[in-house]
Amino acid sequence: MTFSAVQSEIRPVQWNGHTCVLIDQTVLPGIYRTIEIRTSDQMATAIRTMIVRGAPAIGVAAAFGMVLGWQEAPQGDPITHLERVAATLRATRPTAVNLFWAIDRMLTVARRDPSFARLEREATAILEGDIATCRAIGEHGLLALPAAPERLRLLTHCNAGALATAGYGTALGVVRSAHRADRLERVYADETRPRLQGARLTAWELVHERIPVTVLADTMAAHVIGRGLVDAVVVGADRIAANGDTANKIGTCGVAIIARHYGVPFFVAAPWSTVDLNLSSGEQIPIEQRDSEEMRAIEGVALCPQGVEFYNPAFDVTPASLVTGIIVESGVYAPGELAAAGQVRLGR
Amino acid sequence: MTFSAVQSEIRPVQWNGHTCVLIDQTVLPGIYRTIEIRTSDQMATAIRTMIVRGAPAIGVAAAFGMVLGWQEAPQGDPITHLERVAATLRATRPTAVNLFWAIDRMLTVARRDPSFARLEREATAILEGDIATCRAIGEHGLLALPAAPERLRLLTHCNAGALATAGYGTALGVVRSAHRADRLERVYADETRPRLQGARLTAWELVHERIPVTVLADTMAAHVIGRGLVDAVVVGADRIAANGDTANKIGTCGVAIIARHYGVPFFVAAPWSTVDLNLSSGEQIPIEQRDSEEMRAIEGVALCPQGVEFYNPAFDVTPASLVTGIIVESGVYAPGELAAAGQVRLGR
Repeated sequence: MTFSAVQSEIRPVQWNGHTCVLIDQTVLPGIYRTIEIRTSDQMATAIRTMIVRGAPAIGVAAAFGMVLGWQEAPQGDPITHLERVAATLRATRPTAVNLFWAIDRMLTVARRDPSFARLEREATAILEGDIATCRAIGEHGLLALPAAPERLRLLTHCNAGALATAGYGTALGVVRSAHRADRLERVYADETRPRLQGARLTAWELVHERIPVTVLADTMAAHVIGRGLVDAVVVGADRIAANGDTANKIGTCGVAIIARHYGVPFFVAAPWSTVDLNLSSGEQIPIEQRDSEEMRAIEGVALCPQGVEFYNPAFDVTPASLVTGIIVESGVYAPGELAAAGQVRLGR
Repeated sequence: MTFSAVQSEIRPVQWNGHTCVLIDQTVLPGIYRTIEIRTSDQMATAIRTMIVRGAPAIGVAAAFGMVLGWQEAPQGDPITHLERVAATLRATRPTAVNLFWAIDRMLTVARRDPSFARLEREATAILEGDIATCRAIGEHGLLALPAAPERLRLLTHCNAGALATAGYGTALGVVRSAHRADRLERVYADETRPRLQGARLTAWELVHERIPVTVLADTMAAHVIGRGLVDAVVVGADRIAANGDTANKIGTCGVAIIARHYGVPFFVAAPWSTVDLNLSSGEQIPIEQRDSEEMRAIEGVALCPQGVEFYNPAFDVTPASLVTGIIVESGVYAPGELAAAGQVRLGR
């Protein structure tokens, strides 16, 4: 596959006035294709099957799922229908809070101003806001990175990139900003089993932008960090509790423990919409368990003998004590400062 | 595949009087097949391509490679030929010290008593000695495991099983002994990318013996250990330096860091032939770099886009400070006690 078919800026969710176009992230990097989503049910399926994935991106996708839901609503009682659509979309994936945040925001708007135009405008604002948010995260993150060496080696886990957001990315937003400021030497991308988002998606994004990337098996992080090849770790998040505990793709916590062991700073990059001030700690974050087929086989090729059991949590929770800083669109906070900053932001 | 074709006790290296029969570990668990090795060159290839792998097993295989080499030797100067065979076998894989240990032992015997019968007897003694050693490791390890709970949840990495030895296994020897003593609840097996020895080989061995096994992606160890599901970690080794620093399959060091973080004991199980008292620390252990194809694709299916770079160290070094105990055939030692015990053993 060449990149000629791909837009210069990666946009995993796009609205064309009446349907939504998603980059099919289940077939990257081998195949680049887009899928047109015409109904709210199709959008729910796309989120559940991870055609679109990444906490901010599924928030944006769900917002347009609500617009699609409005189009399907009967004349008499569109709000009741929209509430059913909201319930369907909410049931797709339990961990990322952006999903619930976006759905609630759309419902609130619909109740206040029940019109297609208003909902379309709100979803578009969520999409455009997310891109602006990611750029701000990138700029704040750049300033928080170690001052030396001049050109940094950054390690990331999973994909918190343009594909995981409306564009630009959170952790990869920091990477992009560092690259543009000529402060980036190389990215180490954990391949991130079982679904290999690092090998498939992060690598694809970075190759697309000619950013040097070395893909690591998840087993290699300790060796690479221990040899002094990594100046900082930057990851995304699916939900951040008020105390800074961070749910992110399975394996993140292990990388954080290893980074701490070797004294390497560990940053979480995510929009405020990922922060759930209603949860006092990470213990309250629900962790999605996914189908064991993701573990048993890769691309349909069985890895394990019959008779083994599997355990397939999609996320883990990194305790705030292992997090150096949380990079949001308004700045970089120590985990302990997050709740107060969030309250100020909400005007509470 | 059923297990009917497989012997009840797994024997990855067998000698039938004039050729050597190896279980082909590159096609497990999907296919169980044996390969007859007729020449020393074939044995070198089998070791390099990991048809036979695991530090003790490649020591045994190399010993029979020397017997095959003797069969090929010209009448006049068999020792010179055998030294060439030794050089070829030594060049196959750099990290495991058992390889060099077995080759040197065979050369020493050949120089003293240059006869086929003597070499065959020595290689057979190495094989049988390794099985006895593994059983002793299993029994010592069982006594070193935590006293509670009664039935333990053990996590292991890669495959240090019957397949990695002449039989019974080192880390899985401890597992087997715990199982036979009714002290085993379950094994968590890291799948161990890139070559998936945990998912493929450890899982196969344990299913074969009806030992409950849950396969984990390497990303899941911190989550599982952090949730209190693991009572101890037991791994094998490819080379142990005099100070207890341990080279083992890539990813071992990360598991050790995570185990220490959560206060879970971390044991290394290996025969004395894996201990290299000539090396004062792990920094001196050569780390094999393997072909990036192992990272790029699984079973020929590409995981990554073109244009990424890879790094593929086959081993890492776990510092002695993270090792609770080293289980050898003569007992269990704290890393700091190992060198003195080894000197006593050598009669120095």
